[in-house]
Amino acid sequence: MSQFEGIVPAIPTPMNAEGQIAEEALRKLVEFNIKAGVHGFWVSGGTGESVLLEDEENRRVAEIVVDQGQGRVNNIIHVGAATTVRAAGLAEHAARVGAEAICCVPPFFYSRSDEEIVEHYRVVAAAADLPLFAYNLPSATRVEIDPPLMQKIQDAVPQLKGLKHSVANLSNLRAFARMGLDAFTGSCHWMLPAMTLGAVGAVDGPPSFAPELWVVIWQAYQAGELKKAEAAQDRASETVEALMRCGGGFHAMIKAALGMRLGIDCGDPRPPALPLTKEQRQALERIVDELDLPA
Amino acid sequence: MSQFEGIVPAIPTPMNAEGQIAEEALRKLVEFNIKAGVHGFWVSGGTGESVLLEDEENRRVAEIVVDQGQGRVNNIIHVGAATTVRAAGLAEHAARVGAEAICCVPPFFYSRSDEEIVEHYRVVAAAADLPLFAYNLPSATRVEIDPPLMQKIQDAVPQLKGLKHSVANLSNLRAFARMGLDAFTGSCHWMLPAMTLGAVGAVDGPPSFAPELWVVIWQAYQAGELKKAEAAQDRASETVEALMRCGGGFHAMIKAALGMRLGIDCGDPRPPALPLTKEQRQALERIVDELDLPA
Amino acid sequence: MSQFEGIVPAIPTPMNAEGQIAEEALRKLVEFNIKAGVHGFWVSGGTGESVLLEDEENRRVAEIVVDQGQGRVNNIIHVGAATTVRAAGLAEHAARVGAEAICCVPPFFYSRSDEEIVEHYRVVAAAADLPLFAYNLPSATRVEIDPPLMQKIQDAVPQLKGLKHSVANLSNLRAFARMGLDAFTGSCHWMLPAMTLGAVGAVDGPPSFAPELWVVIWQAYQAGELKKAEAAQDRASETVEALMRCGGGFHAMIKAALGMRLGIDCGDPRPPALPLTKEQRQALERIVDELDLPA
Amino acid sequence: MSQFEGIVPAIPTPMNAEGQIAEEALRKLVEFNIKAGVHGFWVSGGTGESVLLEDEENRRVAEIVVDQGQGRVNNIIHVGAATTVRAAGLAEHAARVGAEAICCVPPFFYSRSDEEIVEHYRVVAAAADLPLFAYNLPSATRVEIDPPLMQKIQDAVPQLKGLKHSVANLSNLRAFARMGLDAFTGSCHWMLPAMTLGAVGAVDGPPSFAPELWVVIWQAYQAGELKKAEAAQDRASETVEALMRCGGGFHAMIKAALGMRLGIDCGDPRPPALPLTKEQRQALERIVDELDLPA
Repeated sequence: MSQFEGIVPAIPTPMNAEGQIAEEALRKLVEFNIKAGVHGFWVSGGTGESVLLEDEENRRVAEIVVDQGQGRVNNIIHVGAATTVRAAGLAEHAARVGAEAICCVPPFFYSRSDEEIVEHYRVVAAAADLPLFAYNLPSATRVEIDPPLMQKIQDAVPQLKGLKHSVANLSNLRAFARMGLDAFTGSCHWMLPAMTLGAVGAVDGPPSFAPELWVVIWQAYQAGELKKAEAAQDRASETVEALMRCGGGFHAMIKAALGMRLGIDCGDPRPPALPLTKEQRQALERIVDELDLPA
Repeated sequence: MSQFEGIVPAIPTPMNAEGQIAEEALRKLVEFNIKAGVHGFWVSGGTGESVLLEDEENRRVAEIVVDQGQGRVNNIIHVGAATTVRAAGLAEHAARVGAEAICCVPPFFYSRSDEEIVEHYRVVAAAADLPLFAYNLPSATRVEIDPPLMQKIQDAVPQLKGLKHSVANLSNLRAFARMGLDAFTGSCHWMLPAMTLGAVGAVDGPPSFAPELWVVIWQAYQAGELKKAEAAQDRASETVEALMRCGGGFHAMIKAALGMRLGIDCGDPRPPALPLTKEQRQALERIVDELDLPA
Repeated sequence: MSQFEGIVPAIPTPMNAEGQIAEEALRKLVEFNIKAGVHGFWVSGGTGESVLLEDEENRRVAEIVVDQGQGRVNNIIHVGAATTVRAAGLAEHAARVGAEAICCVPPFFYSRSDEEIVEHYRVVAAAADLPLFAYNLPSATRVEIDPPLMQKIQDAVPQLKGLKHSVANLSNLRAFARMGLDAFTGSCHWMLPAMTLGAVGAVDGPPSFAPELWVVIWQAYQAGELKKAEAAQDRASETVEALMRCGGGFHAMIKAALGMRLGIDCGDPRPPALPLTKEQRQALERIVDELDLPA
Repeated sequence: MSQFEGIVPAIPTPMNAEGQIAEEALRKLVEFNIKAGVHGFWVSGGTGESVLLEDEENRRVAEIVVDQGQGRVNNIIHVGAATTVRAAGLAEHAARVGAEAICCVPPFFYSRSDEEIVEHYRVVAAAADLPLFAYNLPSATRVEIDPPLMQKIQDAVPQLKGLKHSVANLSNLRAFARMGLDAFTGSCHWMLPAMTLGAVGAVDGPPSFAPELWVVIWQAYQAGELKKAEAAQDRASETVEALMRCGGGFHAMIKAALGMRLGIDCGDPRPPALPLTKEQRQALERIVDELDLPA
């Protein structure tokens, strides 16, 4: 795959009853999504419980997803960590196992200067020497990469290829596109509007549950069928909003919903996340049923 | 005019050298915009120096704009004020002079409970008994009307017709549209993306300077010409960004730019706003020249 | 009065049933506070419904308070307004009627550059040529004056004498004190801690209801009686917290409490503020009774 | 040590040229501080590069500090981590090696419900069964524990003993003290003011460099010598502000300053933190010299 674009689900990390990586479930999840027409995966990112995974687990997930994909889609492996050494180690591993690209949140917990953020990205990118996607996720990291900071990264990091923009401000996303970056919106609610400003697609968790809903938006947009694209975006957004109304945490919901729709047991989210309560599970089951998606 | 939609410039309030309302300039500005195909005006709003105007001035501006329009476009008169009595007085006057609608920021300066905000809107709307547009402008008022609060307003205020959403979050704009409201985006940079989620048009200051740039977006969107609409949005956004690069305050810039393009002397912004410096004026002149818009 | 320090209640603006200034109530309120040992008044500020008053009302309040004080205390008249012209007009009037000082919030509603804020203060201060207190109230104005901006004001405005700091950050308050400014804390909860870092006293609304509670803190602090000052601060803070637990808006509560304790009818807050509900009034009455303060 | 109070430096984690824990430097640092009269240590917290340490390193630091202390002071070991399992593992280890207490930031990176935060603290505290201090550090974690959330923690976690409050709002600190908690201010700039509202002392990084400056505040406060305490707080705050003016990151500065004053080589901060530049080092050297503290 040479082009980064389209529907790139941020896949959850299925776990078994002991909280360990559930390899078969992960392979099934990848296969289901590829068959549904997605263009890549965002692996061990925010939806994948990212920084809650041990480094060894992160590596295992990367190996499984790349192996299952067999070059059919773009695997973008998340390597963000609190220290540069750990992130660079994960980056080096991602390249070794054959990933198409890496992605990386800025260093988190402590506030960092622009210079420290740029140097972090430089070292991590050099360790993989793969296309690098910055991961703009200030709701988790407290760092919003704005166009001036992105320019500094672009100047210093030859591997910078694009970003996931999980921020409401579409003007900055447009600015990133004009800088020549492959800009994915990080919200599947805004895929269509973001594309009208130059985004190349969407990276988000909910498409991993029902990728066909976003594939339709993508196809209609490519065909220039505006009304069809709008209707498809509307249906996709309605679906996510319905799922969220069940209450409970995002990771608990998305894992449970995958079990309900596809029979893929993804287990519980890792603590401190709590699983859905019985009432939340029942509400979610009703919603998944009503969506009437093929199993 | 029965339909609220399209390009609704938030017009500046031209002033003479003594800082008084410049009636002829205001009439020319209205006429120029109508000829360019706009669908209405947002009068004495954020761009119109709103709360910097005395009540008597607000009334005078409303009279002039309505009189000049002669029913050709929708005039939406801003009546927001720090007290309910003052806002209701302006609302009553707007109805008396024949405005098509009013708009109103939530009460500002002091923090208010939802109940107080709803009651404010109820009294103000009743005083005019015209279609009411809420004005979601948290960057000035510190109040962001979110969908639950809007629902309370909708339940209590029969005149509520729509809103101007000057907030980056397009998911809330979509929610407002689904509540049956005429939702204008308050950013002319996001007109096209907002319309793909259900917005009915854009209300913002820059279109008063070059309305034709947004009229093209509107027409292409109506015709379902997606690529043309995207190119038009791109050109419009580029234009605004170029103007902003001259430095200086927004009101100073927009007033000066109108003088440079059209020869309509709009004067200086009201203090504490400062006029452009000589260097900023020169930079702006170069930019307006390069835009190569018809005078 | 030459020294600005001590307990400076931010007094409410009593209104009659028609919502007009209630002169006799205002005089009684001033007199009660002077007899209780306060060192000055902060007039028509945040507690005084400030920007909800018409300019004519602001002037009337200034005249009454200065006349009633007869030079016994420092009257610091608030002159902040949305435009420089209006603020300067109020400032000129304050000087004419014999106020000891003026205070002024930064220009609000629109965002302003440092240069615009400094120029606003320069013009307003020159109009009165009285000692000027900046009013650091970002919860209402969205502008926080930090030490670098205060330095610019101090460099350009010879009348700058001090400030009211209604911000939690005591490090900045300490910085202002070290700049030679008379720094009042704007929270009566932090009077004692603020004084240990160099504050000269407290300006806040609740002391207008029970000034004796803060006068005791002041006296104990002056006498170096640390434990006594701590106990007095604790009692004062407990009192305010008890009053706030009744629910309802601040202005409604403080006006009602004054009626309950002293029989001074201060009326309702100006809309959009809502008066206390019946339940809130009853809760407040119980609390005022339990405080067992002399009537 | 049964009482938690006084000066509790948050000690840096010295590292050698290879970025590994420098045991001898750490022992010297502990010894110097104990001799200077501190009452405890906050170990591997924010100043100690906390979440940048591997779990094995965290354990090693705990062992060294506890061993060196030999029961002379209270060692409060930080065990915060992104997952409950990792934090509980560190907590269990801290108890095993003989720590007097543990401290823990709320789970970070992902947003968590109150219920998830409480359950995290319950499991972690049970694993150590030592006194627990919550670590209120929203600038790093995005979670501010306010009094209602603290009440939920107190209700569910019998080991909860106190907190470090690294937040400007002293009203909440007062509320925590009134809940019976040992409330340390997390800012050494506010030690004296915080104690007047009920704080039991200060936990912060700069005292590890010059503990005697805060010991003097503590002693003066205990003796009721208000003016002396104020002067001591002023000197201590001036010292920290002078150090910060050299530029560079906090960890780089504090480690370098310790080398300059005491000859204890603490190494560089762990990347992505950058070391001081040559110019920053020279500026810091001048400042440390001017402080004229005994070596």
